[in-house]
Amino acid sequence: MMLAHRLLILAIALACWACTSQTNPSPPSATGSGDTPRNIVLIVADDHGQDAGAYGNPVIQTPNLDALAADGVRFPYAFATTASCSASRSVILSGLHNHRTGQFGHMHDFHHFKSYSNLKSLPVLLSEGGYRTASIGKYHVAPQEVYAFDQMLQGNARSPIAMANTAEAFITENAQQPFFLYYATSDPHRGGGFADDLPHAPDRFGNRPEGYPDIEPVRYNPDEVIVPPFLPDTPTARAELAQYYESVSRLDQGVGRLIAILKDAGVYENTLIIYISDHGIAFPGAKTTTYEPGLLIPMIVRHPGGLRSHVNEAMVSLVDITPTLLDFAGITPPTYPQHIGLPVLREQLPEEQGLHGRSFLPVLSETRPEGWDEIFASHTFHEIQMYYPMRVVRDRQYKLIWNIAHGLPYPFASDLWESPTWQGVYAQGPDALYGPRSVQDYIHRPAFELYDIAADPYESNNLANDPRYAETLTTYKNRLRAFQQRTSDPWTLKWTYE
Amino acid sequence: MMLAHRLLILAIALACWACTSQTNPSPPSATGSGDTPRNIVLIVADDHGQDAGAYGNPVIQTPNLDALAADGVRFPYAFATTASCSASRSVILSGLHNHRTGQFGHMHDFHHFKSYSNLKSLPVLLSEGGYRTASIGKYHVAPQEVYAFDQMLQGNARSPIAMANTAEAFITENAQQPFFLYYATSDPHRGGGFADDLPHAPDRFGNRPEGYPDIEPVRYNPDEVIVPPFLPDTPTARAELAQYYESVSRLDQGVGRLIAILKDAGVYENTLIIYISDHGIAFPGAKTTTYEPGLLIPMIVRHPGGLRSHVNEAMVSLVDITPTLLDFAGITPPTYPQHIGLPVLREQLPEEQGLHGRSFLPVLSETRPEGWDEIFASHTFHEIQMYYPMRVVRDRQYKLIWNIAHGLPYPFASDLWESPTWQGVYAQGPDALYGPRSVQDYIHRPAFELYDIAADPYESNNLANDPRYAETLTTYKNRLRAFQQRTSDPWTLKWTYE
Repeated sequence: MMLAHRLLILAIALACWACTSQTNPSPPSATGSGDTPRNIVLIVADDHGQDAGAYGNPVIQTPNLDALAADGVRFPYAFATTASCSASRSVILSGLHNHRTGQFGHMHDFHHFKSYSNLKSLPVLLSEGGYRTASIGKYHVAPQEVYAFDQMLQGNARSPIAMANTAEAFITENAQQPFFLYYATSDPHRGGGFADDLPHAPDRFGNRPEGYPDIEPVRYNPDEVIVPPFLPDTPTARAELAQYYESVSRLDQGVGRLIAILKDAGVYENTLIIYISDHGIAFPGAKTTTYEPGLLIPMIVRHPGGLRSHVNEAMVSLVDITPTLLDFAGITPPTYPQHIGLPVLREQLPEEQGLHGRSFLPVLSETRPEGWDEIFASHTFHEIQMYYPMRVVRDRQYKLIWNIAHGLPYPFASDLWESPTWQGVYAQGPDALYGPRSVQDYIHRPAFELYDIAADPYESNNLANDPRYAETLTTYKNRLRAFQQRTSDPWTLKWTYE
Repeated sequence: MMLAHRLLILAIALACWACTSQTNPSPPSATGSGDTPRNIVLIVADDHGQDAGAYGNPVIQTPNLDALAADGVRFPYAFATTASCSASRSVILSGLHNHRTGQFGHMHDFHHFKSYSNLKSLPVLLSEGGYRTASIGKYHVAPQEVYAFDQMLQGNARSPIAMANTAEAFITENAQQPFFLYYATSDPHRGGGFADDLPHAPDRFGNRPEGYPDIEPVRYNPDEVIVPPFLPDTPTARAELAQYYESVSRLDQGVGRLIAILKDAGVYENTLIIYISDHGIAFPGAKTTTYEPGLLIPMIVRHPGGLRSHVNEAMVSLVDITPTLLDFAGITPPTYPQHIGLPVLREQLPEEQGLHGRSFLPVLSETRPEGWDEIFASHTFHEIQMYYPMRVVRDRQYKLIWNIAHGLPYPFASDLWESPTWQGVYAQGPDALYGPRSVQDYIHRPAFELYDIAADPYESNNLANDPRYAETLTTYKNRLRAFQQRTSDPWTLKWTYE
């Protein structure tokens, strides 16, 4: 019934889209050709994987995300470039890979990572381009001068409807000037302790008995959640997934409220809305890794151009967000000296560098645009003690992961280490299977992991040592290294020095 | 002849010292009991090991350092706590171990490490205590708000006499108010390229054909330099040591000029002068390691109290500098919340913490003061890609090194990697000997290194796996761990998580 309903929506949407004459929705200036301001709302969820109705999950309740997808463009091949909160947000807000933002890891507490002071962030560029800008919810980047918003709206990042309500005044305060709203929830991140009152004492994922203002909690039966192949199908994992689902459904209600406010304010039709997550779900096997569940994110784009229920199979990544939003606003992206703050690298580099991503607006209406068949990822730290640089190239056929510090045990984020889902398997010993690999293989990784990602989407068969793939390995290593050189990655030297 | 001359000086100095009635040179306030300001000059050399006449080297020409030692107190057991420039300077200027300053590695270029913003540094504390403060030469810490000096005097840090001359105006500008001068050379750091005109093309160590203002270059015959046991006795190493010696002799002339200025200004007798280096010599086997040649530094203290040619065998380290200078100035050291910027660590900690070092002024006149028989070291990064945390406890009998990231190859600072001294040995293969260990053993280190440092000062025999030392190993591990807990070291968790 539910599926049939979805198919109906899809059919109608496709029909609508076929009627539109949309070709290039990219306009020249922030106020468009007329006087209507071109607003931007960027919604950033926290550790949300591709778990939504619109992404094919028939159990989880995300009616508002589904409606946004029905009213816009869904990207099934959207990727984070680093599966760590601070690091990824610096990528989202700069259009640069993490090894170029300086925000190599967490900004909070003793971790103390900060982005380069000469980085020009998205809110600053938009502000200089005539936008009024506001942030509400999770921030997690530094320093504030670099990620400067005109307004830092205050609100509990776990209370998404209250956040939307708080943002309403900003949205409506000036109809003449375009606005940029950065709305970032803390859902569905782990947090709030363990639910000792429930079987298997799952992490609460922010759910609390007293609830949140205006939120109608959606509770899930652990027996009914869908356990993805990278997780063990244990009662504990199911108990945690049920909590995660509840947290996703809460944030979905926030999205719904925010969109209702935009509609009520009469700005929905001239606002570009993008929904993304900073990276995948907060379970070992996903977050902090560069495996598919860590990198794959939901991305839904609602463009004033009028595309409906469109699916765009371009491979895009979070470095593309800033270039896309600047393109929408008609603002020229910044260039930087060959390396932010670095006078000399040991390899030849171009003198000026643009952003690492590019606008996908020109191909938004396409289904499988040419030249959008490759993404790169670059992860270095999560917490300061969790040094584990990885560099990744992934296209439609293969994926190569370079574990630069492969001599180290894989470092766990503390909340992932403590998760009952992990501990339940870990307690069974090094040979116990956690998803597609053993505990010991998860912890001790080889220098290179090469997957035929088209045939082996769960990355269970490493081909890096298979002589039949020697040439492929070399090809992808070369592509990875070229990417690093092109983007002034300080870790490029590890190809020769170690 | 030269040695006889030194012995004569020593004898006279000892006699003088025996006559003094100095017991506790620590006074209550910055202006002392009378009206004479109690000035402070902190001289920080760059990568200078214990290579000076006063430290028993009969070849190197350091008459001014020798004179300072003859007029003060020499510490043969002075140690850096991390053998990396930025990191060590944050320790010198804070009295905290590097894992608590936030300056985990280099501040410059893309490395981008910065100290915690709520750290109260030595110049700030002295300034608040009524001192006028100035820095000249190498700075290499961040941010500037934290390491704020009233004046940032400009000058080429390779031109030490010019630096001293520039500082003269600051020294003399106000005779009523005490001053703090931070005089930091870039000598004898590597730099300036390779001397292709010389045999074996050694690094220039800042020496240049056109010389430096007012410096009389002292050139050395490579055949005559003393090759320390941690280095290979090769013509290449000798060629590089000759350049290093020349750089040391240059900085020595700067020290001489600075002291002459203090004397001319009539403030020498009411100024505490401390000469230190940030850490040991810039050769593999020393700098960036926690081996003795990396940690042992020259430290000479000239105190107004009048001690002459005194040798103090206390084990002191660079965390003691700030407490000592605050003690001299009569300023109470700061305390911090249990962790700078860290609300919760997973282990119980005291709520308030003082500095990690302590003033050695109360024991300055002693020869082997009780309770000064142990030092700790804490190193984490050099460059950002050079993650290699090590923690060390060393007393008079044993030294334990914990190589936390022992699964990684030891990361080389780029200038040390490129050094002809290293490359000459490295080219001979993994079994070639570099000082007391093979190339492969230098690069691949075990988790623990335990040395009977009293019997094995060159750290050639690791006892960590010797069953006869199992109990000793446990004892020192416990001491190390307790130190980490006491000082809120984020890497404490590696005892349990890896």
